[in-house]
Amino acid sequence: MKGRPGQFFSDGRRKVDYVLVFHHCRQTSLKGSAHHHPPHRLNVCVDLGVGVDSVVEEAYLEGDPAEGEKVLIREEFEARLLEAGLEMERDTEIRVYGPSFTRLHAPWSVLSREAEFLKIKVPTNKSYRVREERGLSGTLSEFWRKMNQPFQPSIPQLDHSTKHLAHCFSRDKLHLNLYLSLCLNLFISSFLFCFFFISISFSSPLSLPTIPPLISLSPLCLSGITTLIAKGVYDSAFPLHDLLHDEWARYGAFYKYQPVDLIRKYFGEKIGLYFAWLGLYTQLLIPASIVGVFVFCYGCNTVDTNIPSQEMCDEHQNFTMCPLCDRACDYWQLSSECGTARTSHLFDNPATVFFAIFMSVWVAMFLEQWKRRQITLNHSWDLTGLEDEEVETHTLLFIYHYGDRLPGYLINISSILFMFGLTFSLVFGMIVYRIVLSTVMAMSPDPQTKSNVRVTVTATAVTINLVVILILDEIYGAVAVWLTELEIPRTERDFEERLILKAFLLKFVNAYAPIFYVAFFKGRFAGRPGDYVYVFNDYRMEECAPGGCLIELCIQLSIIMVGKQLIQNNMFEIGIPKLKKLIRAFKDKGISLEEREGQLTRHPQQWNLDYTLVPFDGLTPEYMEMIIQFGFVSLFVASFPLAPLFALINNVIEIRLDAKKFVTELRRPDSVRTKDIGIWYNILSGMGKFSVIINAFVISFTSGFIPRMVYQYMYSPTGTMHGFVDHSLSYFNISHFPSGTAPTSKAPNITFCRYRDYREPPWSAEAYQFSKAYWAVLAARLAFVILFQNLVMFLGLLVAWMISDVPKDISEQLKREKKMLVDVFLREEKEKLHLVQTLFSKNHPSEDAWWLNTFQLISHRL
Amino acid sequence: MKGRPGQFFSDGRRKVDYVLVFHHCRQTSLKGSAHHHPPHRLNVCVDLGVGVDSVVEEAYLEGDPAEGEKVLIREEFEARLLEAGLEMERDTEIRVYGPSFTRLHAPWSVLSREAEFLKIKVPTNKSYRVREERGLSGTLSEFWRKMNQPFQPSIPQLDHSTKHLAHCFSRDKLHLNLYLSLCLNLFISSFLFCFFFISISFSSPLSLPTIPPLISLSPLCLSGITTLIAKGVYDSAFPLHDLLHDEWARYGAFYKYQPVDLIRKYFGEKIGLYFAWLGLYTQLLIPASIVGVFVFCYGCNTVDTNIPSQEMCDEHQNFTMCPLCDRACDYWQLSSECGTARTSHLFDNPATVFFAIFMSVWVAMFLEQWKRRQITLNHSWDLTGLEDEEVETHTLLFIYHYGDRLPGYLINISSILFMFGLTFSLVFGMIVYRIVLSTVMAMSPDPQTKSNVRVTVTATAVTINLVVILILDEIYGAVAVWLTELEIPRTERDFEERLILKAFLLKFVNAYAPIFYVAFFKGRFAGRPGDYVYVFNDYRMEECAPGGCLIELCIQLSIIMVGKQLIQNNMFEIGIPKLKKLIRAFKDKGISLEEREGQLTRHPQQWNLDYTLVPFDGLTPEYMEMIIQFGFVSLFVASFPLAPLFALINNVIEIRLDAKKFVTELRRPDSVRTKDIGIWYNILSGMGKFSVIINAFVISFTSGFIPRMVYQYMYSPTGTMHGFVDHSLSYFNISHFPSGTAPTSKAPNITFCRYRDYREPPWSAEAYQFSKAYWAVLAARLAFVILFQNLVMFLGLLVAWMISDVPKDISEQLKREKKMLVDVFLREEKEKLHLVQTLFSKNHPSEDAWWLNTFQLISHRL
Repeated sequence: MKGRPGQFFSDGRRKVDYVLVFHHCRQTSLKGSAHHHPPHRLNVCVDLGVGVDSVVEEAYLEGDPAEGEKVLIREEFEARLLEAGLEMERDTEIRVYGPSFTRLHAPWSVLSREAEFLKIKVPTNKSYRVREERGLSGTLSEFWRKMNQPFQPSIPQLDHSTKHLAHCFSRDKLHLNLYLSLCLNLFISSFLFCFFFISISFSSPLSLPTIPPLISLSPLCLSGITTLIAKGVYDSAFPLHDLLHDEWARYGAFYKYQPVDLIRKYFGEKIGLYFAWLGLYTQLLIPASIVGVFVFCYGCNTVDTNIPSQEMCDEHQNFTMCPLCDRACDYWQLSSECGTARTSHLFDNPATVFFAIFMSVWVAMFLEQWKRRQITLNHSWDLTGLEDEEVETHTLLFIYHYGDRLPGYLINISSILFMFGLTFSLVFGMIVYRIVLSTVMAMSPDPQTKSNVRVTVTATAVTINLVVILILDEIYGAVAVWLTELEIPRTERDFEERLILKAFLLKFVNAYAPIFYVAFFKGRFAGRPGDYVYVFNDYRMEECAPGGCLIELCIQLSIIMVGKQLIQNNMFEIGIPKLKKLIRAFKDKGISLEEREGQLTRHPQQWNLDYTLVPFDGLTPEYMEMIIQFGFVSLFVASFPLAPLFALINNVIEIRLDAKKFVTELRRPDSVRTKDIGIWYNILSGMGKFSVIINAFVISFTSGFIPRMVYQYMYSPTGTMHGFVDHSLSYFNISHFPSGTAPTSKAPNITFCRYRDYREPPWSAEAYQFSKAYWAVLAARLAFVILFQNLVMFLGLLVAWMISDVPKDISEQLKREKKMLVDVFLREEKEKLHLVQTLFSKNHPSEDAWWLNTFQLISHRL
Repeated sequence: MKGRPGQFFSDGRRKVDYVLVFHHCRQTSLKGSAHHHPPHRLNVCVDLGVGVDSVVEEAYLEGDPAEGEKVLIREEFEARLLEAGLEMERDTEIRVYGPSFTRLHAPWSVLSREAEFLKIKVPTNKSYRVREERGLSGTLSEFWRKMNQPFQPSIPQLDHSTKHLAHCFSRDKLHLNLYLSLCLNLFISSFLFCFFFISISFSSPLSLPTIPPLISLSPLCLSGITTLIAKGVYDSAFPLHDLLHDEWARYGAFYKYQPVDLIRKYFGEKIGLYFAWLGLYTQLLIPASIVGVFVFCYGCNTVDTNIPSQEMCDEHQNFTMCPLCDRACDYWQLSSECGTARTSHLFDNPATVFFAIFMSVWVAMFLEQWKRRQITLNHSWDLTGLEDEEVETHTLLFIYHYGDRLPGYLINISSILFMFGLTFSLVFGMIVYRIVLSTVMAMSPDPQTKSNVRVTVTATAVTINLVVILILDEIYGAVAVWLTELEIPRTERDFEERLILKAFLLKFVNAYAPIFYVAFFKGRFAGRPGDYVYVFNDYRMEECAPGGCLIELCIQLSIIMVGKQLIQNNMFEIGIPKLKKLIRAFKDKGISLEEREGQLTRHPQQWNLDYTLVPFDGLTPEYMEMIIQFGFVSLFVASFPLAPLFALINNVIEIRLDAKKFVTELRRPDSVRTKDIGIWYNILSGMGKFSVIINAFVISFTSGFIPRMVYQYMYSPTGTMHGFVDHSLSYFNISHFPSGTAPTSKAPNITFCRYRDYREPPWSAEAYQFSKAYWAVLAARLAFVILFQNLVMFLGLLVAWMISDVPKDISEQLKREKKMLVDVFLREEKEKLHLVQTLFSKNHPSEDAWWLNTFQLISHRL
C-alpha cells in the first residue's frame, strides 16, 4: 500500500496535507435557486455518516443555510485559508454533483510559523549519550534487551543510546543548523491544520445565518471546520493516509511490542498514547494472568484435601436439608450437591484472598507504571515543558448563556436516573424470571425437567441478561451523546469529558448491576424455613446454591465478560464498520451512477480512496471497552481469578484489530497533541479505589472464607475444619412449617431439617433468633473488610510512593538537558556580543552613527 | 526603619543586592601559615550558628581547607562573579580579623540576561479588564468586598479589575515598551543570585581540596555558595533588608488579611506561599471553630436531659460496682461518679458524630481550597506556564556513588526505629508511673489522698508527658537533620524533603503516641473481675474512668495541644532567637573588642546591622508546628470539638509573631521561586486520609455512641435509652474473686458486683464469656467504621470533584491571555515582514547583494 498514487498536487511536488470535501447538491444545482426547496429536502446532500460532530445537527435541521449561502461561506473560508498562507488545489473539472475535493498544502513558511507559535519542540543536532548502566545492572539490562529482541517490531530501531536535545522551534535559530529538519514535516502538518482552522475563525468570525432558538449561538464564536461540517457547509475534512505499518496491524505480530513512536508520528500523540496505554495494560496483564492461573490451579489441587467439601460429599454425614421450595420440593441430602461444593472450592479458597490483595496492588502498580510510561513518552516525544493549555487544541464550540443550560441539566439528571431505573428494573425482571421459571419447573411432574432446574434457569437467564446488556450498551451510548449535547459544553475537550463520564456511568451500571445483585443481594432476603420471604405472594425469593453464592457470581462474571468481549469485538468492531462501508457504497451508487463510472475509469486519487473509508469517531469507544474490561479484572477478581487471563487473550487480539481498523478502514484522524489520557486516568483510578472495597466485601460476605476461619479459630474443638459443615447449618423443627408449605410428598421420618444460617436451634429459648455465632461471624466479616480495605489502601499508597512518577533516567536526562541549554544559551550570548563588537570595529567612525541606527533598528525589529 | 542608611555602594547609586561575609581568622593571620595548626583549631573562625546548611560539616571537620587555600578559593570565586558581570565592592580598610563584607550589585545587563534565561514572566503594558460579575452575583461580590474592607491591610491596594498580560522576559522585545519595568528590579535580584551562584559553579568547578573519605565528593559538582559556606570559605551570604511592613507584623492587625503580594515581593514566592497557606488555614478555622463551639454547647444543653447520665447519677438505681483495685479498694456506687458521667456527655454525644463528619469534609475542603488559592497566586504572580524544574533552584549538593549511601540508609532506618522505640517506651513508662502511683495512693490510709487519686495521677502524668514531648521534639529535630545528612541527598530540595519526612514522622509519633494509647488501648487489656491482667505481677492494668475513656482522651488532648502551643510559641519562637542573638553578640565581643569599637563609632552600615541578626533557618519548623497542630484539629476532633477554636486563637497570634520574626529578627532570606508548598501538601493530604479512619475508630470504639445506639434499637424494650446503664453492666459473683484480691474492708451484704463489659452473668452456662450483646455491639462498631470511612471518603472525593482546582475566573483569564498572545504574536509577525519589505525596496539594486548578506548576517546572529 506504500507509495499510493495521488498524494500530491498536480505539479507532483507539493504534498496534499489535508482535504476538504463538499457535495454538490443535485437538486439545488439543477434547479438553480435554493429558496424553492423546503429545508428538509436539503438533507439529501448531507452524508450523515460523515458528521464527526453532530452537536449542531438540530441547528442544521432547524435552520439550514441555503445552498447559495453555503457557497459563500465556503468561498470566504477558503479565502481566509489562502490569506493565511496555505496553498490550495481544487478539482479541475466543474461538476454539478458528487463529492468535490479541495486539497490543501501547508508550505514551509506556514509550518514553521505555526510551529514557532505553538512552541513545538523539535530535536536539535545537539545530542548526548544516554548514560549506560555499568556493572551488574548494565549486564542485566543488556540481557533484558537481548531477551526482548524477538518481541520488538521489525522496524528500523531508533538509537536509544543518544538523545537529541529538543528545543522550542524558532525560525530565528534556523541558521544554527540546530534542527533535525525531518521532523517538522512528518507529523506536525495535520496537527497544525486543526489548530489553524480554529485560530482562523477565532480572528475572523464567519457570518453564519439562522441561529436556532435553543442554543442561541453567538456568531462570534462559531469556530473551526467542525462547525462548518456540522452546518453542512463541508461534508468532511481529513488528512490523507500515506504510509501504513505492516509490522503493527498484523495478527502474526501479536506477541510483539507495538511501534509506538511510529504510531504517534502517523496519528498524533492522542492515538499514540491510547495504543501505548493499551500495550502497557496488556503487558501487565501477563503477570496477573499467571498468578491467576496459579491460584486456580491451587484450588484444583486442594479440592480433594479440602475438609468442608469432603464433609459435604460424605454420604454418611446425612444432613437432611429443608426443601428448596414450598410443597412441591422434598427434603434433600446435602451430599447430593457435592459437585457444586467441589467446584466452589476452585474459586473460594484461601489463595483467592491472597489474589485479591495481589490484584489490588497490581492496580496501584499499573496506574503508577502508566504515569511513568506517560512521562517517558512525553519526554521522548518532546512534550515536556509545555503547559497543558498549550498542548491541546481546545476547540471552542459555543459561548452560551448560563440560563440556557438549566433545562439541559434537568433533563440530564432525570434521564440518567431514568436509565438507572431502567437497568435496575431489568435486573429485577431477571430475578422474577428466574424465580417464576424455577418454581414452575420444580412443580413439573417430569423428573428430567426437575433435575435440570438450576442449569436451565441459570443458562437462559444469563444469556438473556447478556443480550439485554449488549443492546442497552448501544442505546446508552447514543443517549449519552444526546444528553451531552443538551449541556452545550464549551470546548471539544469539555464535550468529550462530559460525554465520557455519562457514558461510563450508564455503561458501568448496565454491565455490573446484575453482577452486584448476585454478589451482594442474592439469597440474603430469602428468610428462613417457616418464615420465608415471598414476592407476588406466591414465589419464594431465590436462594444461593448450597455451595455458596460465589460460584454463581463466577458463572455470571465469566459468561458476561467473555460473551461481551467476543460479541462486541467480532460483531461491533468488525461487522459494523464493514456494514457502514457497504451502506456508504450503496448510497453513493444511488446518487451518482455516471459520476462513479467516470471516477473508476480515471486513476483513483488517494483522496477518492480515503473518502470511501469510514470517518474516525474518536477514541471513546475503544477506551470504554477497555475500561469496562478493566472493571472485570479489578472489581470482582476475588471471585474469578481467571479474569486477567481472559482479558489478556482478548487484548492481544484487540490491539491488532484496532490497528487494522485504524490503518485500513478509517479515514486518517487529525493528529491531536496531548500529554495524557485525560479523564480516563481518573476513571481508572476511581475504579481502583472502588475495587478495594468491592473485593473486601466479596471475600468477607460472598465467599465462605470468614465463617471457615471463625470456625477454625473460635469454635472448632480440634482446631481443624472438621465439623464445619455441621456448625454452619442450623436446625429447623419440621412441625413448625406453616400449614400448606411443608413438602407434600410423604410423611418424613425425621424431626429436624437443616438450613444454612447461624440461628438458635428450635429447643433454645430464643428459637430461630440469630445465634451468638452469627454475631461473631458478622463481626469477623466486618473486621476483615476494615482490615483488607486499609491494608490494601496502605499498600497502594506505598506502591505509589515507591514508584516515582518520573523514571530515574528521565529525570537525569532532564537535568543534563537543562545544563546543555545553559551552554547553548551562553554561547549564543557570547556570539552576539562578539558580532556587535566586530561590526563596530570594522567601520569608519563617520559611518558609526548611521550604522548604529540601522543596527538598532534591525536588531530591535527582529 | 524605612530608608536605612548604607543600602548602597560607596558611590551612593548602585544598590547592594547581596552580601558575602567571611571572618578573617585571628590565629592564622597572626601566625602567617596554616600548616602549624591542627584542623580543629580552625573551628574558631567559623560561626557555627551561621551554617544554614551543615551537610558538609563533617567534611569540614575531617579535612578543612587551610586558611591560605580559603583565600585562593574566595579569590577564584569572586573573579568568576566579576566575569559573569556582577559588580563588587569590598571593605576599604584592610583588616586582620572580624567579619569582612563583600557587597555585590547586579547591574541591569546581568538582571535582564538572567531573567531572560530563567524565562521569568513579567507584566507587560498589555492589559485587559477582568470581567466583572453582573446581576445578583455581581451585587453579592460587591457586598462581600465592602464587608471585607475593614479586614484588608491598609496598604495601597492593587487594582484587581485590570490584569496585565505577563510574558516571558526577552531583551529583544524591550523596544516594544512592553514591560512594566518596575518589577524586575524589585524582587528578582535576590532570587537571581541564588541561581547565579549555582550556574557559575556548574560551568566552572572550583578546585576544592581534601575530599573526606565517606562522602567522596567529585570536585566537579561542589556547587554554589552553600558549599562554600559549609566549607568555611565564607561565613554567610544574604541579601539586605530594605523595607518593612508595619501593616503586617503588628499584633493590632490580627483581624486583617495579610498583604501576601507584598510578602512575596519582599521574601520571594516560597515564604509568600507559607504565609498565604497559614492565612487560608486560619481563615478556614473560623467556621470550624464556630461549629465546634455549637457542638460543645449542644452537649452542655442536653446534659440534663440525657438519660444515661441521669441514670448514672440516680442514687436509687443502686449499682454496686466491683472494686477498682485489689484488697485496698472497696465496692463503690456508680452514682458517686456522676460528675464524670455528666462531663463525658459534653464531648460524647450524637453531635460529635456529626462534627467528625463535618471536620473530615472540612479537611477535604481545605485541601481543595488551598489548591485553588495556590493556582490563583501562581496566576497573579505570573508563575503559570513554568515547568516545576524551571521554577525552583535545585541546588546540587553532591553527586555520590551509590555504594556509599547504603550505610547511611541502614543507620537511618535503625535510628528511626530506635527513636520510635524510645517514644513507645516513654509512653509505657508513663503507664507504669500511673499504675504504680495510683496503686500506692489507693493504699494510703489518708482518705484525702485516696479521694484525689484520679486527679493527682492524671495531672502529674500529663504534665510530665508534655515536658517529655517538648524535650524529645527538639532532640528529634536535631536527629532528623543528622540522619538526612547521612543519606547525602543530591539537591537542596531533595534534602529538604527527606528532612521534613523524617522530622515529621518522629515528631508525629512523639506528639501522638500517648494520645493514641489513651484513645485505643487504655482499659482494653484490664481483664475482668476475677481475671484481671497484671503487670509486674502486682499491679493491675489501668482502666478507664466510669464515664468512658473519651473524657480522658479529651483532657490529654487539650493539655498537650494548648501546652505545646503556648510553650513552643512563647519560649522557643520568641525566647530562643533572642537568646541566640545574645550569644552571637557575646561571641563577637570576645573575638574583636577593638574592632567592635571601631565599628560602633562609625555610622553602622545596613550590612553590619543585618549581620547581627539571626540567619534564616528555613520554613520547616514553621510548617512543622502548624502541621502537628493540624493533626490535633483533624485526627482526634471527634473527641475534642474545641480543638479548632484553640488552633484559631493560636494561629491569629502565630501569624503576627512569625511576621515580626521575619522582618526584625532574621536576616533577609534568599527569595526562592516555587509554585507550591511541596511535600507539605502531601503530608496534609495524608493526615486528612488518616484522620478519617482515626475518627471512625474514636467514635465507634472510644465513645459510647454505638453501644447506646445498639441498646436503643436492638435491646431497649421501650425504644428509649431507659435501662441502658443496667444493660451495659455485667454481673460478677463476689464469691468468685481469687483469694487475696477481694476487698478487705468488711464483709459486704451483696452477692454480685457490677462491671462495665458485655459478658454472660455468673448463672449462665458460659459464665463470664462474651455475651451475644458483646458480639452484636462489636459488629455494630465495625459496621460503623466501614460506613463512616467510606461515606467520608466519598464525601471527600465529591468535594474534590466539585471544587475545581482552577477557579473559573482564572481559567477564563488564561484563555483571554492566550488569545491576546496570539494577537501580539501575529502583529509582530506582520511588522517583521513589513520591515524587510521596506528595507529592500529603499535600496539601489546594485547594493542589493551586499545588503542582503549583511542583513542575513545580522538577522541570523541576533
